[in-house]
Amino acid sequence: MYTLGIDYGTNSVRALLVRCKDGKETGTGIYNYQRGQQGVLLDPKDHLLARQSPYDYVEGLEQSVKLAVEDARASHPDFDPSQVVGIGVDTTGSSPIPVDASNTPLAFQPDFKGNLNAQCWLWKDHTSHAEAAAITDLGRRERPRMLAQSGNVYSSEWWWSKIWHCLKVDPAVFQAAHSWVELADWVPALLCGINRPKDVKRCACAAGHKALFDQSWGGLPDKEFLTQLAPELAQLRDRLYGEVFDISFPAGQLCPEWAERLGIPAGIPVAMGEFDVHYGAVGCGIQEGTLVKVIGTSSCDCAVLPAENEAPVIQGICGIARGSILPGYFGVEAGQSAVGDLFKWWVEGVCEGEGGLHADLTREIQELPPGATGLLALDWNNGNRTILVDQRLTGLILGQTLHTSRAEIYRALIEASAFGARAILERLDSGGVHSERIVCAGGIAGKNAFLMHTYADITGREMAVSSSNQTCALGAAVAAAVLAGPENGGHATLAEACDTMTSLGDTVYRPDPERHQTYNQLYKLYLQVHDAFGGVNPSADLSRVMKDLLDLKDSTHSVS
Amino acid sequence: MYTLGIDYGTNSVRALLVRCKDGKETGTGIYNYQRGQQGVLLDPKDHLLARQSPYDYVEGLEQSVKLAVEDARASHPDFDPSQVVGIGVDTTGSSPIPVDASNTPLAFQPDFKGNLNAQCWLWKDHTSHAEAAAITDLGRRERPRMLAQSGNVYSSEWWWSKIWHCLKVDPAVFQAAHSWVELADWVPALLCGINRPKDVKRCACAAGHKALFDQSWGGLPDKEFLTQLAPELAQLRDRLYGEVFDISFPAGQLCPEWAERLGIPAGIPVAMGEFDVHYGAVGCGIQEGTLVKVIGTSSCDCAVLPAENEAPVIQGICGIARGSILPGYFGVEAGQSAVGDLFKWWVEGVCEGEGGLHADLTREIQELPPGATGLLALDWNNGNRTILVDQRLTGLILGQTLHTSRAEIYRALIEASAFGARAILERLDSGGVHSERIVCAGGIAGKNAFLMHTYADITGREMAVSSSNQTCALGAAVAAAVLAGPENGGHATLAEACDTMTSLGDTVYRPDPERHQTYNQLYKLYLQVHDAFGGVNPSADLSRVMKDLLDLKDSTHSVS
Repeated sequence: MYTLGIDYGTNSVRALLVRCKDGKETGTGIYNYQRGQQGVLLDPKDHLLARQSPYDYVEGLEQSVKLAVEDARASHPDFDPSQVVGIGVDTTGSSPIPVDASNTPLAFQPDFKGNLNAQCWLWKDHTSHAEAAAITDLGRRERPRMLAQSGNVYSSEWWWSKIWHCLKVDPAVFQAAHSWVELADWVPALLCGINRPKDVKRCACAAGHKALFDQSWGGLPDKEFLTQLAPELAQLRDRLYGEVFDISFPAGQLCPEWAERLGIPAGIPVAMGEFDVHYGAVGCGIQEGTLVKVIGTSSCDCAVLPAENEAPVIQGICGIARGSILPGYFGVEAGQSAVGDLFKWWVEGVCEGEGGLHADLTREIQELPPGATGLLALDWNNGNRTILVDQRLTGLILGQTLHTSRAEIYRALIEASAFGARAILERLDSGGVHSERIVCAGGIAGKNAFLMHTYADITGREMAVSSSNQTCALGAAVAAAVLAGPENGGHATLAEACDTMTSLGDTVYRPDPERHQTYNQLYKLYLQVHDAFGGVNPSADLSRVMKDLLDLKDSTHSVS
Repeated sequence: MYTLGIDYGTNSVRALLVRCKDGKETGTGIYNYQRGQQGVLLDPKDHLLARQSPYDYVEGLEQSVKLAVEDARASHPDFDPSQVVGIGVDTTGSSPIPVDASNTPLAFQPDFKGNLNAQCWLWKDHTSHAEAAAITDLGRRERPRMLAQSGNVYSSEWWWSKIWHCLKVDPAVFQAAHSWVELADWVPALLCGINRPKDVKRCACAAGHKALFDQSWGGLPDKEFLTQLAPELAQLRDRLYGEVFDISFPAGQLCPEWAERLGIPAGIPVAMGEFDVHYGAVGCGIQEGTLVKVIGTSSCDCAVLPAENEAPVIQGICGIARGSILPGYFGVEAGQSAVGDLFKWWVEGVCEGEGGLHADLTREIQELPPGATGLLALDWNNGNRTILVDQRLTGLILGQTLHTSRAEIYRALIEASAFGARAILERLDSGGVHSERIVCAGGIAGKNAFLMHTYADITGREMAVSSSNQTCALGAAVAAAVLAGPENGGHATLAEACDTMTSLGDTVYRPDPERHQTYNQLYKLYLQVHDAFGGVNPSADLSRVMKDLLDLKDSTHSVS
């Protein structure tokens, strides 16, 4: 028996057929979004804007699953689509979609078809930074406990900022929207044929991490609070939701229409959606004491804590939400806004190279000792998601001489990414989220050994890597296998399903003590620049930074 | 009648035949240095090192003059080499050469042939930064007035730092050197057949700007001071010089051997050498109230002040020296360590493009309003020569998003260069060196209209450009014409020679008031970052810089 995990990424959707008895990945289908630039609708006048067409979601659903089924059939002659016993879906987020009363995206209506504001507001859309700042201000003053649970800073990547921004810049769209639905909830609802927003089961993860939802204060933010932002938001609250579900619940059963479109049995359970990284954490076998790092275009770090007491508060950690990853646990989420995107920017955007240039540049600089480039960079080209929670921060590179090469800058960007990862790790640890092991997943973790070595050297921690390179889809398939239950060839518990269906790869990246020592010195400089430009320490003395970098560079030469 | 100006640049030597009666440039010959990388001997382990082979100087002298004569013959049938009535030479500096007792470079001896320390220590060699810092320290304590005249900071680009560093890292070379001679003095001495270092006439410009020479304190620094640096330097002082000469004096007469090698008359006057930029200033018709900017791989800014009283002291201005540019005036010198080199680094070193890429990138960004890139850069890839006088500063670029292009960064580097130019202009002005007009020269000024417009917009000043693109060689030819005298077809005075032989081009770059206003805002941010990393204001608050840049960027979008 098999379950299907469907992973909605930033540029494509991927369907994965997984065998329940051993986690064997039996078939894969990928659909690249057709609209916009690599699937992202952009506005040349505003680099903060990033939207996505719901048409791509629907087409991608059908195409990716059909391809996965074909792939499984071709490679496994004994596979039959009737053996599919459950479906799980993960998506990016917070990616809210304005919908009408029939749960249909406004983007499907002729009036709004070409309107960027009627599309899905993709996670990395940062147009609503002013609204995020206002929610942060008001939240700190009026609802400090509520805001603290989201890291004390509300982000422009999140639900309320985006919806409020839509109200401001395009009231026609706002008024036409009967409700708003997270992509992670909308796709399962589509599969189940749910056609009223009120009937859409909302996942604990999007609600808790992005929409300030917690039952301890009555669910979504109260109307009084929302009214102070905008009365229209308070009115919208009635058309949203008052209850959320973790992944021990199904979103519903596959409806006949979509069963036919996909060629798999109607009525099988469809798991609650979760954000990609959360299902990725499940696909990595997350449990207490594990930090899962899903490293792709951006990165997300996940951990869990037993949800017995009130949620802990950790400054700058984007969110802590009840039941968001595993039932019975707080899900803790952090991350970096650009990882793969940062290297891609350098290789494609600046060097104007092809994808193969990544490997060429890596070859050039992978043998250099730490400090040899004399460079230091901040990984903020897409803002800073965790610790500073500020999308209006930008990139920085310093230490260039007339001899600095593109490869050296590439390396500095990889190091910057690792310094950012270390800062998160230290912040989590000081906040009581201790990780005994780190499991990495995502496109970058699986294929970039130099980056993984650098992460290990800079953090001083061992980095294990999931054996699957499709952990998000795998995690969704795991959840579906539990819902299918042992009677249908699935599993009795999540722990059993994780044990059976997920595993680690053989490669573990271990830190080199000597390189770690040198990187400790560079990390101090990184923190100085980080804190100065990030506003943590506005009177930081930076007058020695360039000289310290040159001293370190000189010392690497005298060694070599 | 004609005079010959010979210009020793960083990568090549150029000879220029100029008609005395009207400044007509009649023939040119260029010799590209054959050794090292584009003429510069490098050490891959130390990016601070830059040396040059004296063989290139000798070969380049003969070849460039022969080519200039051929060129003049080909284009002007009435030209005859016997009509050459004088020679002037300009060079880079401080570029000291260790020589033996016969004034022969040690590099010509078999023992030292391949030794980088026995070559000419090119101006842009920065290996002696520790020695420069020690001279600065001691000078401030023990000889404050002396140091103040060189901007209160002694540079690693200068004479004593380099010679002392040689003593430390290669005592064999230091011991073998009977004396050291500036390239600007060595070439005229070679032409005149002078074969004892004691007989080499030393120019006021190298001595005053780079070797702390002033008659008010008895010439070179006293032995007591030098002994505190190193006793060997005090001993060397006796084998150097006690007198210097401005360009109203000849270095000597062309010796028969070199007259034959060059095919021009023996016995004609050879003018005192000067640094390229100083003769460039003469070639631009410098007088009181004129700021001459020679903009090439690096930039040098020159002004003159009547030398009646004690020299003024201006913090951070590299040097003020009696008679260094014009007889009877203090020469005032400032500059930026990388201008053309900075853009070349970006285009060739990082983008790995050909020279034509400069024009392509310029086309892409020349129409953008100020602030539209959201970027801010420091032009310190080769250190900061004026104001901070610190070679151990490095480049910085900030404000990058995932959409930042190579062309936008190119523009930010041009703006950084212009901001650096403005900082110098303001420092000179506040020090009493007021410029009523600015005349630019050098390769960049002549061919990069966008850069010149940006300089005008950022400084808010009109920028005129010399009609000659060989002003350094032209200035040397002007000085030679005065020494030849009216009786030989030359001129009676320097003023007459400048009036007759130099002129301005028709193009004047005028600032756009609106762009200037916007750039004023960016300049404030530049100064914040400049002062923070440069140590001027170590507690500068940088936490708003990225946001201010984004605000400015947003405002340009709302206009366009």
